[in-house]
Amino acid sequence: MSVAAPSTLRPLREAPGGDAVVVIDQRLLPHRLAHETLATPEAVHHAIRDMVVRGAPLIGATAAYGLALALRADAGDAALAEKTAWLKAARPTAVNLAWALDRVAAHVRALPAAERASAAWALAGAIAEEDIEVNHRIGEHGLPLLRDIAARRGVGPGRPLNVLTHCNAGWLATVGWGTATSPVYQAHAQRLPLHVWVDETRPRNQGAGLTAWELGQAGVPHTLVADNAGGHLMQHGQVDLVVVGCDRVTARGDVCNKIGTYLKALAAHDNGVPFFVAMPTSTLDLAVADGLAEIPIEERSAREVTHLAGRTAAGEVLEVAIAPEGTRAANPAFDVTPARLVSALITERGVVPAEEAALRALMAAA
Amino acid sequence: MSVAAPSTLRPLREAPGGDAVVVIDQRLLPHRLAHETLATPEAVHHAIRDMVVRGAPLIGATAAYGLALALRADAGDAALAEKTAWLKAARPTAVNLAWALDRVAAHVRALPAAERASAAWALAGAIAEEDIEVNHRIGEHGLPLLRDIAARRGVGPGRPLNVLTHCNAGWLATVGWGTATSPVYQAHAQRLPLHVWVDETRPRNQGAGLTAWELGQAGVPHTLVADNAGGHLMQHGQVDLVVVGCDRVTARGDVCNKIGTYLKALAAHDNGVPFFVAMPTSTLDLAVADGLAEIPIEERSAREVTHLAGRTAAGEVLEVAIAPEGTRAANPAFDVTPARLVSALITERGVVPAEEAALRALMAAA
Repeated sequence: MSVAAPSTLRPLREAPGGDAVVVIDQRLLPHRLAHETLATPEAVHHAIRDMVVRGAPLIGATAAYGLALALRADAGDAALAEKTAWLKAARPTAVNLAWALDRVAAHVRALPAAERASAAWALAGAIAEEDIEVNHRIGEHGLPLLRDIAARRGVGPGRPLNVLTHCNAGWLATVGWGTATSPVYQAHAQRLPLHVWVDETRPRNQGAGLTAWELGQAGVPHTLVADNAGGHLMQHGQVDLVVVGCDRVTARGDVCNKIGTYLKALAAHDNGVPFFVAMPTSTLDLAVADGLAEIPIEERSAREVTHLAGRTAAGEVLEVAIAPEGTRAANPAFDVTPARLVSALITERGVVPAEEAALRALMAAA
Repeated sequence: MSVAAPSTLRPLREAPGGDAVVVIDQRLLPHRLAHETLATPEAVHHAIRDMVVRGAPLIGATAAYGLALALRADAGDAALAEKTAWLKAARPTAVNLAWALDRVAAHVRALPAAERASAAWALAGAIAEEDIEVNHRIGEHGLPLLRDIAARRGVGPGRPLNVLTHCNAGWLATVGWGTATSPVYQAHAQRLPLHVWVDETRPRNQGAGLTAWELGQAGVPHTLVADNAGGHLMQHGQVDLVVVGCDRVTARGDVCNKIGTYLKALAAHDNGVPFFVAMPTSTLDLAVADGLAEIPIEERSAREVTHLAGRTAAGEVLEVAIAPEGTRAANPAFDVTPARLVSALITERGVVPAEEAALRALMAAA
């Protein structure tokens, strides 16, 4: 873990005493590093909905703790069902949220009510630890892909492997390592020369605010670009591969991820650039086939488009408007990249094509 | 002109007395509408380089006045050549800048030095007036395309024609009407129900700052979206056509335009959405064939990516940083959309396919 995320900077940890979890308030990065203590299920729900925590794996683990906290007040069957559904509704798109909550609920439902809260808390902890392990394995499976491409493209001193990523699928989006960044951090630790193009990722700027910050902390060379620039970079041979995370992957390999991912996948396809999706298998939703038709896309506030927060020369963080007053804005938070544009999925169980047979075989082999 | 640009808001006009031009300082929009008087060639050069004025047609006309001002000080052959080259270098990508300057230089070179300054001034005025006329014709030629698509897509009350545009190719980018917006304004004037998706256009936000403002002034319904959203909107049938402007079009129909245009063209192609480029023929560069290999792409300041200006709640306009301090950024200002992705070019002489034979025939017919 030390390379990817110093333990002092873990995005989710249990508070001493075990009556709350402590998270990094990601809304304040990169301007201020501050933690928030979540001691109630309401605080957890709010933290997920308002994106104090974000990233599919991280919201899953955080929600699991939230359900454990809820069960301390009432662990009856009705409360269990209600709080599970309520926490799931905090954000609709990522499947990990539902996956983690369903896993906790199924586990404790078999237990006497008196044991449910502590069992849920323990399982939330296990889910969090598992996430670190899963992401480490994603990195191990992804690393040979990076090495192969590096060899083919003549990477060496003075000619780094150029990786483009969108949004933040780094350790801030998970409990540790990150998904898309895991092979990057492992390659960097093994001294493969690399450089990351960081998509700004409007409207919430997770690239400019989180990925650039995270890579900077880890000493990985990187360059921030507007989301508009990626196609141009690929046309000019300046991107060797793209790797992104995901919020839900369907049975046939359609990938739902941060809005704008589809545009980068199109450009990668048009320029023969490999396009990889790092995917913990908890992100796979075998109940859904057609990502475009079936995955609910969260529509967030127009204000995220018309306003943004930044740091003044004096160091103050404040919000400014970038559009004329009263401008209407739309803000779909995710899009779906059809499987045909995905070169491969990098999972903790290995690298697989974005195809239904391969995905079902991967899960059946478990 | 009244629909597209009230005369009081003309982005370029001669100062009374004819010893300067007055432009809208587009860096301050949408927060403040202010004019700047350019009375020297240095002021014109600065206004173009720093994007006080921007938009391929507008910088061409402004530069023509700049050359006229320069000739007032020294109209000799050496000064004429030197000032022409110097003004051309203010921005490297758009061909209209070179086109307008070469036209003025060629015209006055045949005259005695004493007549050159006033002849250049008169020709600059003619270029500006011509631009308005050319753009009006682009609208007339584009309008039937919009009407056809509207008919095919069932546009009517409650179901507007959904147009997506990138950057600002509106009247602010020209002397009047705009290029991409000209058919839109004419359709709106003829009461065709329409709605424009306005790409924010990072990093300089010409969509959020200029196009949204301009459409708002004209009462055209519009919705601002992050640049990342366009592909998703097209996948879901929410875009009936795309129309953009251009900075240079090559002999074979490759289109150089604001960074990010290529990504929208890919998405349009992938979803069967018509992708039109509005092109005054002054933007055509028959000396260039392969846009990707041959057009110089301006690399602008990293600060445009890491910082941006907005309006505080108190109404103050200030700059904020959105990335960690010291973050490296790259800022290519344009990209090239290959001709294969362009449905048609809308010129003042008619609508033509993005193909060399058609473009050469169009120019030969003049």
